[in-house]
Amino acid sequence: MLRVVTIDEASRELEERFSNLPLTTETVPLLEGFGRYLAAPVISHGAVPPFSRSTKDGYAVRAVETAGAGETMPALFALLPAVEMGKGYDHEIGPGQAAYVPTGGMIPPGADGVVMIEYSEDLNVNEIALSRPCALGENIIFQGQDMKQDQEILSSGHRLTASDLGAVAACGNDTVVVYKRPRLALFSSGDELRLTGEELGPGCIRDINTVTVAAEAVKMGFDVVKTAILKDDPGVFLSALEEAREEADIIIVSGGSSAGKKDYTSSTFDAMGGEGTFVHGIAFNPGKPTILANCDGFPLVGLPGHPVSAWMVFRIIGAAFIRLFHRTGESLAPQIEASLGENLHAAPGRDTFKPVMITKQPGGEYEARPVPGDSGMITLLSQAQGYIHIPRGTEGIIKGTLCRVYLL
Amino acid sequence: MLRVVTIDEASRELEERFSNLPLTTETVPLLEGFGRYLAAPVISHGAVPPFSRSTKDGYAVRAVETAGAGETMPALFALLPAVEMGKGYDHEIGPGQAAYVPTGGMIPPGADGVVMIEYSEDLNVNEIALSRPCALGENIIFQGQDMKQDQEILSSGHRLTASDLGAVAACGNDTVVVYKRPRLALFSSGDELRLTGEELGPGCIRDINTVTVAAEAVKMGFDVVKTAILKDDPGVFLSALEEAREEADIIIVSGGSSAGKKDYTSSTFDAMGGEGTFVHGIAFNPGKPTILANCDGFPLVGLPGHPVSAWMVFRIIGAAFIRLFHRTGESLAPQIEASLGENLHAAPGRDTFKPVMITKQPGGEYEARPVPGDSGMITLLSQAQGYIHIPRGTEGIIKGTLCRVYLL
Repeated sequence: MLRVVTIDEASRELEERFSNLPLTTETVPLLEGFGRYLAAPVISHGAVPPFSRSTKDGYAVRAVETAGAGETMPALFALLPAVEMGKGYDHEIGPGQAAYVPTGGMIPPGADGVVMIEYSEDLNVNEIALSRPCALGENIIFQGQDMKQDQEILSSGHRLTASDLGAVAACGNDTVVVYKRPRLALFSSGDELRLTGEELGPGCIRDINTVTVAAEAVKMGFDVVKTAILKDDPGVFLSALEEAREEADIIIVSGGSSAGKKDYTSSTFDAMGGEGTFVHGIAFNPGKPTILANCDGFPLVGLPGHPVSAWMVFRIIGAAFIRLFHRTGESLAPQIEASLGENLHAAPGRDTFKPVMITKQPGGEYEARPVPGDSGMITLLSQAQGYIHIPRGTEGIIKGTLCRVYLL
Repeated sequence: MLRVVTIDEASRELEERFSNLPLTTETVPLLEGFGRYLAAPVISHGAVPPFSRSTKDGYAVRAVETAGAGETMPALFALLPAVEMGKGYDHEIGPGQAAYVPTGGMIPPGADGVVMIEYSEDLNVNEIALSRPCALGENIIFQGQDMKQDQEILSSGHRLTASDLGAVAACGNDTVVVYKRPRLALFSSGDELRLTGEELGPGCIRDINTVTVAAEAVKMGFDVVKTAILKDDPGVFLSALEEAREEADIIIVSGGSSAGKKDYTSSTFDAMGGEGTFVHGIAFNPGKPTILANCDGFPLVGLPGHPVSAWMVFRIIGAAFIRLFHRTGESLAPQIEASLGENLHAAPGRDTFKPVMITKQPGGEYEARPVPGDSGMITLLSQAQGYIHIPRGTEGIIKGTLCRVYLL
């Protein structure tokens, strides 16, 4: 019989078996690191900023010499050559001396404060009057104040965002060490399925799961190395899966995951050796007939054949494997807060995930309504913008309640 | 002087000038359509499902003949050959006849209801007893019930998600017509800037904006065709921008956007012809010195030089251009609801965007705290996971308030 577990139990069972999934690493140019997972911490190659810089247009001075300066009694300084952007500076600011420094320019040696240009008056080409005092370190960002040399900037397992890449560039790295993408072999099973582009004979329908799961998988960070349809034949199943095992890090099969006589997914997983099937069924709606199996440390997943279920289950199970492959924790799931436009009923005893449409109300708030039609309908896929999670043990959610909607 | 506008005013000014930005279109294979914007509606090539299908394992019958059937008085039927998955069916169900049909199998002609296999008993190889009545149409999804032939499934301007692609595949499309990605030429200006990989001389720092803006732009859907550093020289600016205009659909320059003597961005935009600069400054913190210009219908944008500002402003202005290029409306910005861990102060008279770090609390709620350090610090880029928008006219937000955090 099916061994049915909750989502949390399924996660724990996966962690117990797959916390050491092997992935090789590679070094890629900075911009190619976008969306990839760090396989080593990012360490600053140098101090940031690399030299003390002015945060304002103004005059670099010895701050103590501006003490008491004011409009009626400005402090006078002899001008040294101006600091230029992108160049070194050969002079040292001595007593009674000042130098113009633009925003971002290098603070000359000897200076320890900057008076903004607004408080200066040119007396002649060699002399300047400053009418405000500055404190020690005022308008300066010191060498290494932002990041120190050899400081850890980002930790291993982190998924790189656009702004992260800026921080990585700032500290002198032009490459990042990332995990290779986990290679996914993806099958749909069923004699009636045809890939897009193939002719659709009598009794045949389009395969949808290789499309939705592949696209979702690429978004998550998988490398989809193979997609194919499996005929309902145990010999075909076994040879296809054993071949795929040589070129992939994980195999996912949709369909054939119930316990009917033509459902070969679980028996094939068992025939591949090792522990075999350890979960057969997750208390999840839509999507109960989900299989998790372990072939000597190689992960095998059976998704429901039903397109809405396959895609929903993959979003949960695929994300769990992304965490396991990259030895990282849960990421922040993009969501919006929306008020419920009608009552939602849950499936008893299961975690229920309800596809919803979202509309912006005149006041700027969002409203979510379940996509009409039953869960067998494909239009659910094209009309939903997100889904609401109703936890196990909750009967439903009342119209008007503010809910988290997870965005697609 | 600078002409400073609010974010909303800037949006309106962009719409007035750039609602007809030209983009060519292309036809791409289905999976390559992921994340692209439709340039034409998706129309169903055929009915979905393409034939009436059973939603259960069971027996297809004339529903009226099951009336009154029960455990004590089952209805008896003569068995025709079973329906097989992925094949046509040559027989018609006549009076007193039934045929086995698997889930997803074709409903034979003549049948109009399915009794689940649980309520059947084999009497012999040619006869079956059914102990439950079925209603007309029960356990059947009819041809075209999900989508009709020639029905519009998705509209032009829509950005394709993984689940959308499943719906597109279901109705027989193996390609989609999408806009070509808008080509972006991206420059940073400043004599002190060096690209990652270049040697860092005295007084020089890493350019960050070509990295963060390029990565964010690719994520949004731009095609970054060029990134380069511009020396602070009006001649260099003008020739680089005129050359880029030939190969790009939009040009963005970061830095040189204030009104200082070495700020050539706005004057170069003006020198390129047409209306020139129409906005110089957005009441936005961090990021006031933003330039919007119009060179005979070609859009030119000047971002602040400051990395945190450039990246924040680009998230707003880049998204506005994505809508204009694809003739589409606002998309749902991924966000989470978090309670504020400390008081937040706003910049008076401006929309303020505050980078925050997010932590999950023991109860499952999120808490947001502003990233420590001033807005000149690069570590803001690596430590923030999102930002909070404090609208213009609000003084700040009190600790403990539930806020929308926009995710990076």
